[in-house]
Amino acid sequence: MAQKYLSNIKKIKFEGKKSKNPLAFKFYNPDEKINGKKMKDHLRFALAYWHSFRGEGGDPFGSATIDRPWEKFSDEIDKAKARMDAAFELFDILGMPYFCFHDRDIAPEGDTLAETNKNLDIIVKHVKEHMKTSKTKLLWDTANLFSHPRFMHGAATSPDADVFAYAAAQVKKALEVGKELGAENYVFWGGREGYETLLNNDMKLELDNLARFLHMACDYAKKIKFNAQFLIEPKPHEPTKHQYDFDSATVIGFLRSYNLMDKFKLNIEANHATLARHTFHHDLRVARINGVLGSIDANQGDLLLGWDTDQFPSNIYWTTLAMYEVIKNGGLGRGGLNFDAKVRRSSFEIEDLVYAHISGMDSFAKAYKVAYNLIKGGEIDKFVKDRYSSYSKGIGKSIVSGKENFESLEKYALSKGEPKKKSGRQELLETILNSYLFE
Amino acid sequence: MAQKYLSNIKKIKFEGKKSKNPLAFKFYNPDEKINGKKMKDHLRFALAYWHSFRGEGGDPFGSATIDRPWEKFSDEIDKAKARMDAAFELFDILGMPYFCFHDRDIAPEGDTLAETNKNLDIIVKHVKEHMKTSKTKLLWDTANLFSHPRFMHGAATSPDADVFAYAAAQVKKALEVGKELGAENYVFWGGREGYETLLNNDMKLELDNLARFLHMACDYAKKIKFNAQFLIEPKPHEPTKHQYDFDSATVIGFLRSYNLMDKFKLNIEANHATLARHTFHHDLRVARINGVLGSIDANQGDLLLGWDTDQFPSNIYWTTLAMYEVIKNGGLGRGGLNFDAKVRRSSFEIEDLVYAHISGMDSFAKAYKVAYNLIKGGEIDKFVKDRYSSYSKGIGKSIVSGKENFESLEKYALSKGEPKKKSGRQELLETILNSYLFE
Amino acid sequence: MAQKYLSNIKKIKFEGKKSKNPLAFKFYNPDEKINGKKMKDHLRFALAYWHSFRGEGGDPFGSATIDRPWEKFSDEIDKAKARMDAAFELFDILGMPYFCFHDRDIAPEGDTLAETNKNLDIIVKHVKEHMKTSKTKLLWDTANLFSHPRFMHGAATSPDADVFAYAAAQVKKALEVGKELGAENYVFWGGREGYETLLNNDMKLELDNLARFLHMACDYAKKIKFNAQFLIEPKPHEPTKHQYDFDSATVIGFLRSYNLMDKFKLNIEANHATLARHTFHHDLRVARINGVLGSIDANQGDLLLGWDTDQFPSNIYWTTLAMYEVIKNGGLGRGGLNFDAKVRRSSFEIEDLVYAHISGMDSFAKAYKVAYNLIKGGEIDKFVKDRYSSYSKGIGKSIVSGKENFESLEKYALSKGEPKKKSGRQELLETILNSYLFE
Amino acid sequence: MAQKYLSNIKKIKFEGKKSKNPLAFKFYNPDEKINGKKMKDHLRFALAYWHSFRGEGGDPFGSATIDRPWEKFSDEIDKAKARMDAAFELFDILGMPYFCFHDRDIAPEGDTLAETNKNLDIIVKHVKEHMKTSKTKLLWDTANLFSHPRFMHGAATSPDADVFAYAAAQVKKALEVGKELGAENYVFWGGREGYETLLNNDMKLELDNLARFLHMACDYAKKIKFNAQFLIEPKPHEPTKHQYDFDSATVIGFLRSYNLMDKFKLNIEANHATLARHTFHHDLRVARINGVLGSIDANQGDLLLGWDTDQFPSNIYWTTLAMYEVIKNGGLGRGGLNFDAKVRRSSFEIEDLVYAHISGMDSFAKAYKVAYNLIKGGEIDKFVKDRYSSYSKGIGKSIVSGKENFESLEKYALSKGEPKKKSGRQELLETILNSYLFE
Repeated sequence: MAQKYLSNIKKIKFEGKKSKNPLAFKFYNPDEKINGKKMKDHLRFALAYWHSFRGEGGDPFGSATIDRPWEKFSDEIDKAKARMDAAFELFDILGMPYFCFHDRDIAPEGDTLAETNKNLDIIVKHVKEHMKTSKTKLLWDTANLFSHPRFMHGAATSPDADVFAYAAAQVKKALEVGKELGAENYVFWGGREGYETLLNNDMKLELDNLARFLHMACDYAKKIKFNAQFLIEPKPHEPTKHQYDFDSATVIGFLRSYNLMDKFKLNIEANHATLARHTFHHDLRVARINGVLGSIDANQGDLLLGWDTDQFPSNIYWTTLAMYEVIKNGGLGRGGLNFDAKVRRSSFEIEDLVYAHISGMDSFAKAYKVAYNLIKGGEIDKFVKDRYSSYSKGIGKSIVSGKENFESLEKYALSKGEPKKKSGRQELLETILNSYLFE
Repeated sequence: MAQKYLSNIKKIKFEGKKSKNPLAFKFYNPDEKINGKKMKDHLRFALAYWHSFRGEGGDPFGSATIDRPWEKFSDEIDKAKARMDAAFELFDILGMPYFCFHDRDIAPEGDTLAETNKNLDIIVKHVKEHMKTSKTKLLWDTANLFSHPRFMHGAATSPDADVFAYAAAQVKKALEVGKELGAENYVFWGGREGYETLLNNDMKLELDNLARFLHMACDYAKKIKFNAQFLIEPKPHEPTKHQYDFDSATVIGFLRSYNLMDKFKLNIEANHATLARHTFHHDLRVARINGVLGSIDANQGDLLLGWDTDQFPSNIYWTTLAMYEVIKNGGLGRGGLNFDAKVRRSSFEIEDLVYAHISGMDSFAKAYKVAYNLIKGGEIDKFVKDRYSSYSKGIGKSIVSGKENFESLEKYALSKGEPKKKSGRQELLETILNSYLFE
Repeated sequence: MAQKYLSNIKKIKFEGKKSKNPLAFKFYNPDEKINGKKMKDHLRFALAYWHSFRGEGGDPFGSATIDRPWEKFSDEIDKAKARMDAAFELFDILGMPYFCFHDRDIAPEGDTLAETNKNLDIIVKHVKEHMKTSKTKLLWDTANLFSHPRFMHGAATSPDADVFAYAAAQVKKALEVGKELGAENYVFWGGREGYETLLNNDMKLELDNLARFLHMACDYAKKIKFNAQFLIEPKPHEPTKHQYDFDSATVIGFLRSYNLMDKFKLNIEANHATLARHTFHHDLRVARINGVLGSIDANQGDLLLGWDTDQFPSNIYWTTLAMYEVIKNGGLGRGGLNFDAKVRRSSFEIEDLVYAHISGMDSFAKAYKVAYNLIKGGEIDKFVKDRYSSYSKGIGKSIVSGKENFESLEKYALSKGEPKKKSGRQELLETILNSYLFE
Repeated sequence: MAQKYLSNIKKIKFEGKKSKNPLAFKFYNPDEKINGKKMKDHLRFALAYWHSFRGEGGDPFGSATIDRPWEKFSDEIDKAKARMDAAFELFDILGMPYFCFHDRDIAPEGDTLAETNKNLDIIVKHVKEHMKTSKTKLLWDTANLFSHPRFMHGAATSPDADVFAYAAAQVKKALEVGKELGAENYVFWGGREGYETLLNNDMKLELDNLARFLHMACDYAKKIKFNAQFLIEPKPHEPTKHQYDFDSATVIGFLRSYNLMDKFKLNIEANHATLARHTFHHDLRVARINGVLGSIDANQGDLLLGWDTDQFPSNIYWTTLAMYEVIKNGGLGRGGLNFDAKVRRSSFEIEDLVYAHISGMDSFAKAYKVAYNLIKGGEIDKFVKDRYSSYSKGIGKSIVSGKENFESLEKYALSKGEPKKKSGRQELLETILNSYLFE
């Protein structure tokens, strides 16, 4: 592909960990085989269009710092096309197998819904054209139901039925777009599905409506034969004071309450997990043992700050524990690792965008290897197996198979005497983890 | 009742808000009628035996500061009886309608489970004797499955089946004690049901076992015809790094997963809600709309501190919003307001214990009145009703009754045009709340 | 004044706490005398121009919701004038004695600094015209050194000396504007004076430069005889990961290090204090006992959220404890209570802006009365005096007057024996506070 | 030394990173030379006696889990001696160059201060006997002024002058003990120097008294020619609601206010820094650039929990950034790395104590190497130097040398035009850090 906008940056290659070239992968070697597959097929990286192509470096206290050459067009459609052209150039440079977008990221909002949909059609056609020759596919799309003022009180959970209807129309279109572009997943992040104050809130009706909305989405996807995996993305706070999809456990509870458990999996974001005072690892584990670990928003938060910083992942402890959980999950299936991350406000140059993606891709590639070796090495898994072995025999086995009750257990406890204490060995296990990280 | 230990403190009476007597109620007038019942019957206050009669003022950095006269006995059984005698004196002084305890609060642990049970029998008999003449009843009892080293890795979620069995035997006994003393509820707080590190944890097995345990408890209660309401008390962290019963939503999700939703309600603690980054109000609301608001641990946390401070409630904003939710719930049924609160370490005198309970009781009494007036006044409720009125007619009603789908809604949205924005009026609603608080 | 933009809203009057009129003061009675002065002269309220006249309801996840009639002009200078006209209408409606602004709030940035300064001159002249007839004065002005991309790495702490120079020029102009408009104070909030990562940071040079900058500001103010009180406003995080002016104690330490202690006081913001894990009360106390409590940014944070929510104050516990500290400070002198608060994103109507200011003004008016009565009542102060009375006599007096040393004190301690414990009475003191709040 | 208590554990040796022996160092090779000195002389590790020899595994919700063989003695002095014997065995096993203690850790409190001092003398003599043959020296001692009820309201900041006197006597003795045992430092951690509620607090008097106390301590040390480095250890909260020594910046401000800046350095604890919402790195940097980085309490907190978890350090990002700062500081001088860390409650076996120290020592040894290489490699330092180079020439140099003022800078800014933006390159710098960690 001829590079119009990024011609000064060459395709990023794997050069190994000794390389001092900032524009090379140190750990990510896409075609290297590990655990029976190529690294790129395990990791299924995706670029997040909103941050990398719509982010401008503004924050609540400052205006945009980023000024890309492809934003020079005055016509909004021309601009949207140029932006997409640049994106496909970057996909190629990075060897990025997937990308993700919200409907409003790729095409401008018009004066009416009809016009907006028309704009979307134009750009979708343009994307499709790119996809004919590009190796990059669509991991997932979604609808932005949080930026426009009409959604200030929520979309599916708006107190205004007209807004509910509008949101439904918008998601309908986004599902059609997903089908058209072969999206492997479709994500629901309820950016305004929450509340600002309980003083004006009818939580029960709002949650019922949210469930109704999701059922309708499933029905419509089925009708149009859009077979994507459906994902819900938890977040505890921000933008609303309290988001309904607080964390993995809350979303799973919601899905069960409303008979949606077999229709949805979760898209776990690292930074959202930590904002809910869980480790990233925890929320992945909760999703995995409930059979709903679907996909990952691969970013990193600052645990000392109370808002969503959406940093590119660079902490290899966190990526390693994430990959450990993913391998235990048998991989991510149709899901992937989407870089829902933005360059810092002062990293305003195109090079920074490239460095940032290299950082993220290397951090997960190194992590995959460490996690794989950790599992292959087996110390951790053996420790856990031994620790719970009392449930594979004797009274434990009998408990697990449902044969005991309080009376039989009391008899057992009275005769058995004081249980023997065993160490949890946390410090040793942390040392073992380090020995795989810094081998 | 002749006062042996608290003879210097007279029965606390209602003197009204102008009183300067620190040993009088300013707002709590137990027999005053409001909302169709006596105040004391709405509020159903309970004293928490562990804090008020076992708390000694120690903290992780310092030893006990509190030294009660009734602790002078050297024999542990004598001491346990004297302590209970003092407690019934305080119940009488405060006009406290209920109390709550863990098994190990009231009777000492012996060398064996059998001996421990025997100790418990002795004290239960002693309690029963007191209850013959006292007006104070047992709101709930529970088993302490977190203090003893045997529970260091959990009780029902221990990796050791022998510990599971021991815990089962202990809860069996606690259910029998509850029945014997006419407890109206039985509470499960999983103090060690969580984990310290995921590196040594089998979360799935632990949660399955927790559910097995709770089912066995239900079965046994049914068998012995102990008709108490069963309650689970959420908490996010502490003592473990991560508690399984994180918050209301998590517990509700767990109950649904394991078919326990019809057998349990929640005991919501203010300080636990805020440690999970929810308002107290939020967790009450979540429980209420799911039909599981059962009882309340009435204390107060310090939102700037990251541990469970268990302070006596004095913030009347928080108590008012709690009472608002309770009235909307149609009251607390068999539940109540248990002061799971401790005097500060430096409030080591008996007087402080009395001042603290007066503070808590007055704070909820004032709150009940404000909340009742707020509902009677109707501004808030009317605002909410109007705000959601679009779901009572037209397209909204049709959505709620399940008649719409994405295609019909898209048609509606395309024809209807941009939804009209409406203000959420948060600032005005906060002013209205203040006008009821400071009338 | 003829109302062009707010003609539908009448001047807000005091109607007392029984009033149900949402467009009336319930507690703020500006001319009511208390503690020797009129209420308005104690409270010295100010409107924050940036939030109330430049805030548009956008947040990191959503676009503007607020659309004011005076923003209709296409020419930026015309728009700036119309906005100011509307502001003076609102000042009149609210009886607001002061306002505050950043330079860039009131006049548009031009293509060059010279042009920007020219724009500023035009609007300053316009403001001055208004001030001739209005009763509203300028509490303080300041320079916005954080929004423009040039300040992305800081202003006085920028790694680029050209940015330092630019910032100097900008503050020079803002000081001249302050003088021109009779500002009683000038505020420094170091919005980008901090760092994003220590990996690229020279903290020592940055802090030295910050001090150099502040000294130059003092010198220039002296030169032009601008006698305003200079204020620094602490904030711990946001927008940068770590702000140098973290909290009151940090700023005071900085002022002492660089010989600036006699030239600056603090402007304490409630929400900034709580983001630093202090109570608002704490940061006021620290400032007061160090003689630098200068002014207040009167807003309210959400203690369960980790970002600056800048809510209008409505929690009367917090306002009361603030007023307690202010009265103990002998008032705020040339400082005041500036509503650095914004209406919620969904409170987008002009009415909401009025309700919000009423809420804030009433919350502090009620608070002033409670705090005044609390001090007049004297229980709290007497308790504190008694508690520390051992330092007014005997060994304590001798310690305080510098006559003791470790050897003399050891002798005393050995002979005196175990000190007597005294209760801190926290629960009782909280009850006393409530008795004044809910009298 | 003949091992009485730890005879089953052999001396820990360095076996290199490929070793799978959990009882060997993987990175800590004490006699290996790096940066001109032996590793052990850079790191100056110390064992914290309180956690490792007085910690029993209790927490606010549970009793002791740890039961050491040397605690079998019934006589308190015998027990104290046996404990110290075991400690010196462990020092030898670990090759631990230093240890640290509070007075009350090593000897039991008697009925009177005189008796307590006598107990201390006995044990100090015993320690001295050990030190004759041991290679382990005393890094620092301190006085426990927070555990006993007499200190419930503070020690030097107690409202009771008798408590101040008692504390003075206790510190006097602790200084004498430090001199007797050749302590290289003496630490002040103000465990109760703070407040629970401002309602009963006279902050000004308390801070004045704290300063008086510290001055007296300096005077007495001088008098007895105890030349140890004096250290203050900041902590923000816990046990009190608010500690006066909140963080590095606060303590430095306090030292300056009271003319103590030349007499004290700081002992920075990782977990305390993060509880104050700073990185460990930040608080080290603040101390370093103020010339007061004295020593380190080398532990690790859990950033998702709100209390002091005092974990053994295992996160090599954090230890590396700490060592980076230490190398920039020219080492720790007389200070060291004290493991103020405790094994988890369920790591109750002696082996866990050994694993934990190996983990901590290896984590800092690896970190030292990475930090040293990072500095030697020079990319980070060069980037920083270039970033601030504008202050070494032209207008920047002129600013730094005090030759500019607002008028000259305005002239410069007007003529120079818009400053050129430069990227902060955060993502690239994070990648560089990883390339040294995972080389």
